[in-house]
Amino acid sequence: MADSELPTRPKPEESQAAAPAEGDSKSASKNAAKKAAKEKAKAEKAAARAAQEKAQAAAQDANDTAKDLYGPLPETEDVISATRFTELSEEQFEKEITVVARVDNARVQSAKLAFLMLRQQGQKVQAVIAAHEPISRQMIKYTGGLNVNSIVQVTGIVKKPEIPISSATIGNLELHIRKVYMISEAAQQLPMQVKDAERPPPETTDEGNEVDAEGAPIVTLKTRLDNRVLDLQTETNQAITWISSAVAQLFAEYMTKSGSRWIFTPKLVGAATEGGSNVFEVKYFKRTGYLAQSPQLYKQMCIAGDMENVFEIAPVFRAEDSNTHRHLTEFAGLDFEKTFQNHYHEVLEFAEDLLVFILSQLKERFSAQIATIQKSYPKAGDFKLPKDGKALRLNYMDGVALLKEAGVDTSEQEKFENDFTTAMEKQLGQIIRDKYDTDFYVLDKFPMAVRPFYTKADPKDARFSNSYDFFMRGEEIMSGAQRIHDIKELEESMRSKGLDPTQEGFEDYLNAFRQGCPPHAGGGLGLNRIVMFFLGLPNVRLASLFPRDPQRLRP
Amino acid sequence: MADSELPTRPKPEESQAAAPAEGDSKSASKNAAKKAAKEKAKAEKAAARAAQEKAQAAAQDANDTAKDLYGPLPETEDVISATRFTELSEEQFEKEITVVARVDNARVQSAKLAFLMLRQQGQKVQAVIAAHEPISRQMIKYTGGLNVNSIVQVTGIVKKPEIPISSATIGNLELHIRKVYMISEAAQQLPMQVKDAERPPPETTDEGNEVDAEGAPIVTLKTRLDNRVLDLQTETNQAITWISSAVAQLFAEYMTKSGSRWIFTPKLVGAATEGGSNVFEVKYFKRTGYLAQSPQLYKQMCIAGDMENVFEIAPVFRAEDSNTHRHLTEFAGLDFEKTFQNHYHEVLEFAEDLLVFILSQLKERFSAQIATIQKSYPKAGDFKLPKDGKALRLNYMDGVALLKEAGVDTSEQEKFENDFTTAMEKQLGQIIRDKYDTDFYVLDKFPMAVRPFYTKADPKDARFSNSYDFFMRGEEIMSGAQRIHDIKELEESMRSKGLDPTQEGFEDYLNAFRQGCPPHAGGGLGLNRIVMFFLGLPNVRLASLFPRDPQRLRP
Repeated sequence: MADSELPTRPKPEESQAAAPAEGDSKSASKNAAKKAAKEKAKAEKAAARAAQEKAQAAAQDANDTAKDLYGPLPETEDVISATRFTELSEEQFEKEITVVARVDNARVQSAKLAFLMLRQQGQKVQAVIAAHEPISRQMIKYTGGLNVNSIVQVTGIVKKPEIPISSATIGNLELHIRKVYMISEAAQQLPMQVKDAERPPPETTDEGNEVDAEGAPIVTLKTRLDNRVLDLQTETNQAITWISSAVAQLFAEYMTKSGSRWIFTPKLVGAATEGGSNVFEVKYFKRTGYLAQSPQLYKQMCIAGDMENVFEIAPVFRAEDSNTHRHLTEFAGLDFEKTFQNHYHEVLEFAEDLLVFILSQLKERFSAQIATIQKSYPKAGDFKLPKDGKALRLNYMDGVALLKEAGVDTSEQEKFENDFTTAMEKQLGQIIRDKYDTDFYVLDKFPMAVRPFYTKADPKDARFSNSYDFFMRGEEIMSGAQRIHDIKELEESMRSKGLDPTQEGFEDYLNAFRQGCPPHAGGGLGLNRIVMFFLGLPNVRLASLFPRDPQRLRP
Repeated sequence: MADSELPTRPKPEESQAAAPAEGDSKSASKNAAKKAAKEKAKAEKAAARAAQEKAQAAAQDANDTAKDLYGPLPETEDVISATRFTELSEEQFEKEITVVARVDNARVQSAKLAFLMLRQQGQKVQAVIAAHEPISRQMIKYTGGLNVNSIVQVTGIVKKPEIPISSATIGNLELHIRKVYMISEAAQQLPMQVKDAERPPPETTDEGNEVDAEGAPIVTLKTRLDNRVLDLQTETNQAITWISSAVAQLFAEYMTKSGSRWIFTPKLVGAATEGGSNVFEVKYFKRTGYLAQSPQLYKQMCIAGDMENVFEIAPVFRAEDSNTHRHLTEFAGLDFEKTFQNHYHEVLEFAEDLLVFILSQLKERFSAQIATIQKSYPKAGDFKLPKDGKALRLNYMDGVALLKEAGVDTSEQEKFENDFTTAMEKQLGQIIRDKYDTDFYVLDKFPMAVRPFYTKADPKDARFSNSYDFFMRGEEIMSGAQRIHDIKELEESMRSKGLDPTQEGFEDYLNAFRQGCPPHAGGGLGLNRIVMFFLGLPNVRLASLFPRDPQRLRP
């Protein structure tokens, strides 16, 4: 039926320009008369055909014992109460239920039998329609011809299938259709099929191949992201978006319980204070503004404003032209900053416990989603957490020693001037996993040379600093430190890093310390990276709803 | 003591150019010799004086029985456990405690007695230091001379004062100082005093007056916002920032409990689809990007992506050149979008319950903060919630009728082409408060002409729409509606509003409906406005940490 509703492209008619040749008006007029007669006949024929079709349809309609049981959703004041797929169970056998779901697939088996695969948030249930009173052949044709991805309201009897439906995710029952109404019709042609996006994208972009070894269409990451609304409907993405949601929720839960205040610091800022080249410029009325690269300076200003313990959940903007698997130009930042009394390790431990809380609660509360995602991305395996519930903490130099022991050239790192390379970090992750049986760990005491100006130097050894990075599967997910809270020390540190404390834009930040500021430390987490590494996804774009990178500003 | 540490400006010396007159070299050389001798004598005198001072200081130091009890915080491995002001009680009388707090005021009464007013997150406690073994006159001088706003660590005995200290917020006890160490010293001159910012800013900016009727310095809103870190330290702002935090927390709590998924939609977008003139332009590598004016299109795309129930807490950017008491160019948006089964009122009720939850829980969990704020802003009075715990819902036309009844000219509104003016909204708020005894209410069924293109028209009367606004004290805090989910209806609505569906930038949004989308509704709340109207603050800037408006991009 959907076919007949689609507008058909009119065939090109003979154009007027093509008809009469110059200097042959008679012939032209003859031709015109001929043409008119021809068109009249054609019109009559069409009218006759239309009348016939109408009569047939009316007859069919009159014969259609099911005509009120399918088609457009009838206007009614009746309140329907649809059953969710998650509520389905064998207790409903032989009972009538109503569901609202997408058509994942529709197939006419014969004039008397059709199948629908119904999909709800990635879960699939089979529905069958067979001809017996009052279900008509017309209704079977309609049902089997539904456009894939349309949203329908289906009423039917829950039955035990003869054998479990292996292609459905809920295979122990099926629905024998009694009514099927259209709620939202999908176009006949979609840019990709949700079921093809259920398979993970190829790791190498091989645009040449259109089908995989088994003949199924290959949907590249680019196609998925271009058609993200369809892509989000896969069972895997439904689960990933739940994990993203959960990370934010667990972060807020932990922070709130600790007495931390939720802050909203400005993203529109007047100066590019944190490294000029990686900042996005904004036209701010008649001035130039910038997008904050992190809430760093502002959360410290909140601490200087006596807020003691603050957190923020907000977008972070980075104008880095990095086209890698783990960089985004906009990501969700989870930031916190906190005063301490005796030692910055009070804050470090607070942050370690935060991560252990988030990661262990993900496993506890979202095991079903994790299992779903692992079907598509099994490679990385289960995420290993420390058995005793406390984070593993090593010093940066312990990390250097572990790498050296494994035969890695760490001469550059031993000069305290260079951080680990990404490859070294990954290798260290593997070494630590083998030795300590954990995928989450902390490195403390990074060299001062590799940290930003506001980082507090180690008072016992100025080559190092009171700063730390958090790692998951050998990749950094958080950077943090004790911050300098003394104005003179801060100005000196700026100068030693080649920054000018009198530069415009630093004034408000530095004034925050001139009026007194308590010792404090903090950190900033990338939500998308936590999701990516926890689940072992090969690309951070898979852990972002609508990812942004230097090439991508849509959808 | 702080004085001597401040760098003193060197007095201008006689300049070399001023000395020798031309053609008088002999006299010049004589003068030079005289000058050298003079300077030598001066230097000797200064050296003698310095030696004497040093000797005196050493002698004083030797005599100073308290020399280890004050001054810079000694380096120690001792773990101090400071008592918080909120933990103070009469049970601690005669016990020794340690606190870390700011100096709100320091005053030397005599050589033997000094007072400190200590401040912690706006709370004030008095501390006294009196000369008796081992406390020395030097220590009293140091304590009474501490720079205001410095952060100190004070150890002392909790005592019952002879009469309650009326200038302290915790007046039933005082601290008899035993030790006082500097943790972070404030500059001697601060741009404003926190205690002067405790009084609300004048409602009219009267830059001419510098003191109020009682002779206290007037701190204008501008001065406060320019020095926001100091301003945040007031008791009132400590409480306001807790209320802001709480609104976000309660929103997340309600949404999470309802099974809603937390989403992070992009703020960097490729097209200015929601009204071109009010959007900030961003330089996005070699292209032009824009800052999202709301997550509207993206949260609908999430619904089209089968996410069913989503919420977002994120900055919203508006490039409106509105310089009013209730407009910001960046504010915290609380957004939600949700499918429904039978009627959009399912979502409307969900949103009404959300607001009742937030507002009633604020009263329940944050009564102390509300009471603090009311001391500064008593005018608006207690926020009235509906007694039965259900929101009052009227139709837009009921609102028109109420205004008409009160003698307001509503002829424009009766044409269904204009929304209420701000003045009318406020008046309606008063009428409803008088009639229904509530400061929170909902207007449903706004005229279609005043709502955006994605709003669903009322199927029974196309002049109206399935849309609603939420009000607090007669001012709008939320706008929401059922959205059109049918692609044809959506395209028609765009055209009727003068928008071109084929315009670049709409493609991804419209494609979301071409593949099928369930019926849904939602809304967007402004966090800062909720805080402002709940507390009856006269300006939305008072409900933003670091407000942004067309004039202000700092701090």
